[in-house]
Amino acid sequence: MKILLINGANLNMLGIREPEKYGEKSLKEIEEAVIAKGKELGAEIYPYQSNIEGEIVEQIQKALGVYDGILINAGGYTHTSIVIRDALSAVKIPAIEVHMTNIHSREEFRHTSLLSGVCKGTIAGFGDNSYILALEGLVKLLA
Amino acid sequence: MKILLINGANLNMLGIREPEKYGEKSLKEIEEAVIAKGKELGAEIYPYQSNIEGEIVEQIQKALGVYDGILINAGGYTHTSIVIRDALSAVKIPAIEVHMTNIHSREEFRHTSLLSGVCKGTIAGFGDNSYILALEGLVKLLA
Amino acid sequence: MKILLINGANLNMLGIREPEKYGEKSLKEIEEAVIAKGKELGAEIYPYQSNIEGEIVEQIQKALGVYDGILINAGGYTHTSIVIRDALSAVKIPAIEVHMTNIHSREEFRHTSLLSGVCKGTIAGFGDNSYILALEGLVKLLA
Amino acid sequence: MKILLINGANLNMLGIREPEKYGEKSLKEIEEAVIAKGKELGAEIYPYQSNIEGEIVEQIQKALGVYDGILINAGGYTHTSIVIRDALSAVKIPAIEVHMTNIHSREEFRHTSLLSGVCKGTIAGFGDNSYILALEGLVKLLA
Amino acid sequence: MKILLINGANLNMLGIREPEKYGEKSLKEIEEAVIAKGKELGAEIYPYQSNIEGEIVEQIQKALGVYDGILINAGGYTHTSIVIRDALSAVKIPAIEVHMTNIHSREEFRHTSLLSGVCKGTIAGFGDNSYILALEGLVKLLA
Amino acid sequence: MKILLINGANLNMLGIREPEKYGEKSLKEIEEAVIAKGKELGAEIYPYQSNIEGEIVEQIQKALGVYDGILINAGGYTHTSIVIRDALSAVKIPAIEVHMTNIHSREEFRHTSLLSGVCKGTIAGFGDNSYILALEGLVKLLA
Amino acid sequence: MKILLINGANLNMLGIREPEKYGEKSLKEIEEAVIAKGKELGAEIYPYQSNIEGEIVEQIQKALGVYDGILINAGGYTHTSIVIRDALSAVKIPAIEVHMTNIHSREEFRHTSLLSGVCKGTIAGFGDNSYILALEGLVKLLA
Amino acid sequence: MKILLINGANLNMLGIREPEKYGEKSLKEIEEAVIAKGKELGAEIYPYQSNIEGEIVEQIQKALGVYDGILINAGGYTHTSIVIRDALSAVKIPAIEVHMTNIHSREEFRHTSLLSGVCKGTIAGFGDNSYILALEGLVKLLA
Amino acid sequence: MKILLINGANLNMLGIREPEKYGEKSLKEIEEAVIAKGKELGAEIYPYQSNIEGEIVEQIQKALGVYDGILINAGGYTHTSIVIRDALSAVKIPAIEVHMTNIHSREEFRHTSLLSGVCKGTIAGFGDNSYILALEGLVKLLA
Amino acid sequence: MKILLINGANLNMLGIREPEKYGEKSLKEIEEAVIAKGKELGAEIYPYQSNIEGEIVEQIQKALGVYDGILINAGGYTHTSIVIRDALSAVKIPAIEVHMTNIHSREEFRHTSLLSGVCKGTIAGFGDNSYILALEGLVKLLA
Amino acid sequence: MKILLINGANLNMLGIREPEKYGEKSLKEIEEAVIAKGKELGAEIYPYQSNIEGEIVEQIQKALGVYDGILINAGGYTHTSIVIRDALSAVKIPAIEVHMTNIHSREEFRHTSLLSGVCKGTIAGFGDNSYILALEGLVKLLA
Amino acid sequence: MKILLINGANLNMLGIREPEKYGEKSLKEIEEAVIAKGKELGAEIYPYQSNIEGEIVEQIQKALGVYDGILINAGGYTHTSIVIRDALSAVKIPAIEVHMTNIHSREEFRHTSLLSGVCKGTIAGFGDNSYILALEGLVKLLA
Repeated sequence: MKILLINGANLNMLGIREPEKYGEKSLKEIEEAVIAKGKELGAEIYPYQSNIEGEIVEQIQKALGVYDGILINAGGYTHTSIVIRDALSAVKIPAIEVHMTNIHSREEFRHTSLLSGVCKGTIAGFGDNSYILALEGLVKLLA
Repeated sequence: MKILLINGANLNMLGIREPEKYGEKSLKEIEEAVIAKGKELGAEIYPYQSNIEGEIVEQIQKALGVYDGILINAGGYTHTSIVIRDALSAVKIPAIEVHMTNIHSREEFRHTSLLSGVCKGTIAGFGDNSYILALEGLVKLLA
Repeated sequence: MKILLINGANLNMLGIREPEKYGEKSLKEIEEAVIAKGKELGAEIYPYQSNIEGEIVEQIQKALGVYDGILINAGGYTHTSIVIRDALSAVKIPAIEVHMTNIHSREEFRHTSLLSGVCKGTIAGFGDNSYILALEGLVKLLA
Repeated sequence: MKILLINGANLNMLGIREPEKYGEKSLKEIEEAVIAKGKELGAEIYPYQSNIEGEIVEQIQKALGVYDGILINAGGYTHTSIVIRDALSAVKIPAIEVHMTNIHSREEFRHTSLLSGVCKGTIAGFGDNSYILALEGLVKLLA
Repeated sequence: MKILLINGANLNMLGIREPEKYGEKSLKEIEEAVIAKGKELGAEIYPYQSNIEGEIVEQIQKALGVYDGILINAGGYTHTSIVIRDALSAVKIPAIEVHMTNIHSREEFRHTSLLSGVCKGTIAGFGDNSYILALEGLVKLLA
Repeated sequence: MKILLINGANLNMLGIREPEKYGEKSLKEIEEAVIAKGKELGAEIYPYQSNIEGEIVEQIQKALGVYDGILINAGGYTHTSIVIRDALSAVKIPAIEVHMTNIHSREEFRHTSLLSGVCKGTIAGFGDNSYILALEGLVKLLA
Repeated sequence: MKILLINGANLNMLGIREPEKYGEKSLKEIEEAVIAKGKELGAEIYPYQSNIEGEIVEQIQKALGVYDGILINAGGYTHTSIVIRDALSAVKIPAIEVHMTNIHSREEFRHTSLLSGVCKGTIAGFGDNSYILALEGLVKLLA
Repeated sequence: MKILLINGANLNMLGIREPEKYGEKSLKEIEEAVIAKGKELGAEIYPYQSNIEGEIVEQIQKALGVYDGILINAGGYTHTSIVIRDALSAVKIPAIEVHMTNIHSREEFRHTSLLSGVCKGTIAGFGDNSYILALEGLVKLLA
Repeated sequence: MKILLINGANLNMLGIREPEKYGEKSLKEIEEAVIAKGKELGAEIYPYQSNIEGEIVEQIQKALGVYDGILINAGGYTHTSIVIRDALSAVKIPAIEVHMTNIHSREEFRHTSLLSGVCKGTIAGFGDNSYILALEGLVKLLA
Repeated sequence: MKILLINGANLNMLGIREPEKYGEKSLKEIEEAVIAKGKELGAEIYPYQSNIEGEIVEQIQKALGVYDGILINAGGYTHTSIVIRDALSAVKIPAIEVHMTNIHSREEFRHTSLLSGVCKGTIAGFGDNSYILALEGLVKLLA
Repeated sequence: MKILLINGANLNMLGIREPEKYGEKSLKEIEEAVIAKGKELGAEIYPYQSNIEGEIVEQIQKALGVYDGILINAGGYTHTSIVIRDALSAVKIPAIEVHMTNIHSREEFRHTSLLSGVCKGTIAGFGDNSYILALEGLVKLLA
Repeated sequence: MKILLINGANLNMLGIREPEKYGEKSLKEIEEAVIAKGKELGAEIYPYQSNIEGEIVEQIQKALGVYDGILINAGGYTHTSIVIRDALSAVKIPAIEVHMTNIHSREEFRHTSLLSGVCKGTIAGFGDNSYILALEGLVKLLA
């Protein structure tokens, strides 16, 4: 079982940016934790990060025929990107939307997600543990 | 660690109602699965179900000083109940919002949740596994 | 043919409350008229009234496998209750929405019904005769 | 008792157009059924159909002093025609709004009716039987 | 100076319909008063009434090269008709919008006019005298 | 017959400001024209201008028992002033709303008037002639 | 003079829940203060609390012919309950809406009240003293 | 204890304007009643009225360091005045918003108040007694 | 292959009305060009024009079983006519929506089309060439 | 005559992604068909595809002084990209907006296009033939 | 070069009111700083402050033919005053809108400015330095 | 003092694109003018331009610990980019939003800025001088 882990805009700043909100772990540490958990569950994790909307689109396109599932935290693109939505819906690979914070207790414009409609499930608000839970959920879903 | 598991309106119909959408497990089976998982994680689970908004409010009020965490799937009340929101915010016990389906791929009026703003996190779309993931997330959060 | 006749909030006040708007018949008299008409049409009518949203939900749930059709005037819950909607859509028993007054010539917030979308038909504006017409329509529909 | 039965735009296509949605009876057959039912109830029915908004307006105007009641299914004009509304409210003849389908389970723009506000009652969702029920309701109302 | 006086839907009911709102004069009497006033001001008035939107459109089209000005009370079409607006804007003849009542103290949907944007001026609220004032205003404007 | 002629904010700039839009006549000249027309019609005109909302309110209050009618062009206050509306509705003197330009072919925020609802009629789009027509209409209304 | 004092959802948590926002007095203490004040003013106070919307409805229904006035703080139901509104408007007993906090400096969804429209008056923002003021106001109103 | 009593636009018309809605007492009589009640409660009342928004602003500014509390009925400015709001929030003197009528059973545009957000409390619907209750509430709040 | 070419309101004014916007060709010339192009492509074109909404509806109804495709430029009805939409969706003949101008660079109310949802395709902005392109597209689609 | 053919996000997936919706031709095949048609019409076609919004912007910028026209199908960027709109409006090269599907029968958020306002024309709904028709239209427009 | 410096409602409270938000300088000190900077740049500054909307209007009117430019911080009137907008647009003197704070990080109702549309430029968020920058910008613009 | 000067989408077209709107200076000339002004004020300016949203995000991320302030004109991304907003708010470097034109006198969709909320100040409408003023403001703010 091969799973693509996508982190979008500004998530490369984890650990550096606002640790009181996003925790003190860097993206690298989080990715490693997901990879480790993946091993435990019999899933290979392939981490990817980009700040560029179109590159995320392309990474999703390339996933076709290669990955069995996608974990995606698109960062700020979550609320504005029709093209990432289109890419996810084109490749039809089961995807889970991940957020570290509870987006509903933040600004109004973060309350809607363009991606939810094309994802199987959503996990939000558990800090870096959101990724671990999402992985567990995805693995069970694929099984 | 003691955790209150609340299921709201119409969730007593699980297994009976629309199995193609909500799966074939009855509420009882799901509650037992959560209790079993709780044992594994060192948490006692106290399941509760009601179709009456005000009774759910009272159950949350009684949780004060008794439970360490709350898992809540309020069913249709998710989108309309200010009083359940008020009860959760009054007792200040960490709570996780659970949904079996992806509410964003359903009717427009199910896209907003009045409870998200007072819950720590949200898990949606994993069928009955949503409860298990929510429990794991909550236990880690409380630890 | 067995038909459940549900009256929701404040309809137990019929005959007492605002007779110039709702007519002078009490709920009891209306129920009896429906029962009588039912006999004529070969249908047994089981009247039920509650002011509590969650109890109406439970009554609908219990209808599963027992009743062939539902006549429902949910009163003020018509415009706010997702849980009654969910219960109706869960049991999948053909239902008719009934209103004594023309809800479109009243306050703005009474112009939308959350129940219409899951009912087969709607009858509004004929005073207590709305129930009789709804019964006739339902019986023909079930035939 | 003389009753005008108005059918608006595209209702002359009944039986021909989308029989799975509107049933297999032609407009003529429906009109005859209403006339027959009228006889039974002591009411003369005068059927009229037009696809032209202004002609429906004129037919309603001419009803003044001639008819005791109006049954109207304005078709697509239901949602856009202020002039038909004005005509109904000018002649002040008791009118019932009829729809064969449940307009609330169709497109968003069919959820509001400009005519409801000036009609005594509404009947929707019973297929061609909507007309029969509307006639019964109207006759009782006029009695 | 030749002026076309257009009255739209339901204005042929003047004097008959709701005299307490629209006054007791018939359309004919109003047209004659406008013709008389026209004579006084050196303007020939050509009255026209139709309940059919498309016929009003055609009457406006035919005005091209024939009339110097237009007085128009489109009745209920005022608020819905893009095609009458288009016709007025196509022929580019100076037009005045006339209303007998104050449309702003009536229903919400009567507060906007699609015609105002393509008319030179608007006169509303003076009963049948609205026409006389509009004529005076138009004649001065054309002079 | 005594009539108060109120001009609101920026109307003292007439003739000076944007003559291509508002014409070349000064406010004084317009007032004199209205006074002259008033003489002809047997009405005394009392002109008043202020740029201060509260002063216009007070002028209207003082009109009680003194004037038989009011002509008012409130300028920019037309679209924002609840207090002028309240003053007009308090004194209950018949009032006509006057605009020199067609406010519907200008900015969106000029399309609604808070005053229309408490005035008998509206005249807009005839340049300085709007005042003359409004006077004629008002005089006839009072007669 | 007999007055019904209704407290809705979560108000049984007073003194326990968020004392910095709602003060340190328990509901019991507040009720007693109102009863004491009532004695002083010649009014008997009958306190009632429920977290269940439909039970509040029934309590109001039972007030018919028994109480002269109603003081009501419906808690979170204030903003969502059409059925409590309907009950108040059915019994036609003069009612005062009470809030301990200023609801306008809280969340957006607390800015509108469905009850205000059917209550004589509103008092908000004075902590537990809101009840005393409301009682005084109501007594004077009934006198 | 010194308290500033501010009455805004059109409140100088009390007793004169619409007595069936606002009661028969003049503003002077109401002010005297508040002064008398103030004496009783150990508070000096300084009444002020203006129809001019900016003058009310200045009166509030001058209150700084002089008055301990403010009672304000801004009349129609309640719904439109950001500058009165700013003045209240600048001087930070505890203020109570007063209305004689229940603003929620009047026009839509009177349902929101720009002042509520910066006032401690609101009292509405008790006629001239609203002022007395507001004074009592304010005095207790300041104590 | 037989194709119905429908032109709606005001399109009979082509060549006469605003040539700088719609070009100098008359409707007749455009129809002839389409007929000529049709010959070239092996399609018979039957041109029809009406300013009356209901007549367009009837023309579409009559197309059933006679024409293989429809080209329709409904003019101003594009944005308001549910009945033309209903007629197109009733007959189920493949239709193409045509506009000579780019409707998105015109007034706001021309930005939505009620017809697009029931047409196969849309062509806008190419002047009279829009018809030719639409014909080519339709012919290929039908082939 | 040189024409730039731009395809935006996810259009490189043509033939691979959802062939039942977008047809079985690959982007390459479509580009070749456009090039071939271009030859026939005396136009050189330069195809370009990118998933990155900013790269499309740059490609349009570089078109200045090089290309005579632009055919653009921006994919999902159509509905969100102000910067592509700005680029098109900066270079002022005549552009045609192309869509393979009818965007009006898809999700609500696909109903508005930010590009339409700066394009000469739009063609939608003809599958890959949309490109051919757009080319023909553009060539005629440039001639 | 003569420049009018207008400060609107509540800006006379600078230094007194909320120094943590608006800085500790009084209006007088700010005006003097602007005058000094003006000298340096060869511009005479004429400071003016009023809390009364209509007086600001009049000051702007009087600027005609006297001043070469206007710096305006209208305070709370920024968001509600059409009449100040009208005055600025009537005199056509180049004007710059100044705000000490960033209005976009404050309440929703402060996010729109009615004045921006008729000003050359806007400067916000630099505290009292906003005035100096605005002066520099205006001087350069006038040169 | 080191300052990052960011120019977003289409600003590399300055001088080339619409010089009547944006002036005749190229981006290079503007950058040089800012650098020169920076020297004068003791600040080093580092100019950067990109048309790609994600690259601007990365440039802002890299500014952390390197630059003391940011000047940003994000072009069309101003109105749509949550990710640039997030980057600015992540690095917490004081930033000033710059626009050459007055965005409030352009299209509706340019009236809101997603960046204003996380910038210290805004300067708009002074052409290329906007950058110089912004630099001056930023330098003073940092001092």
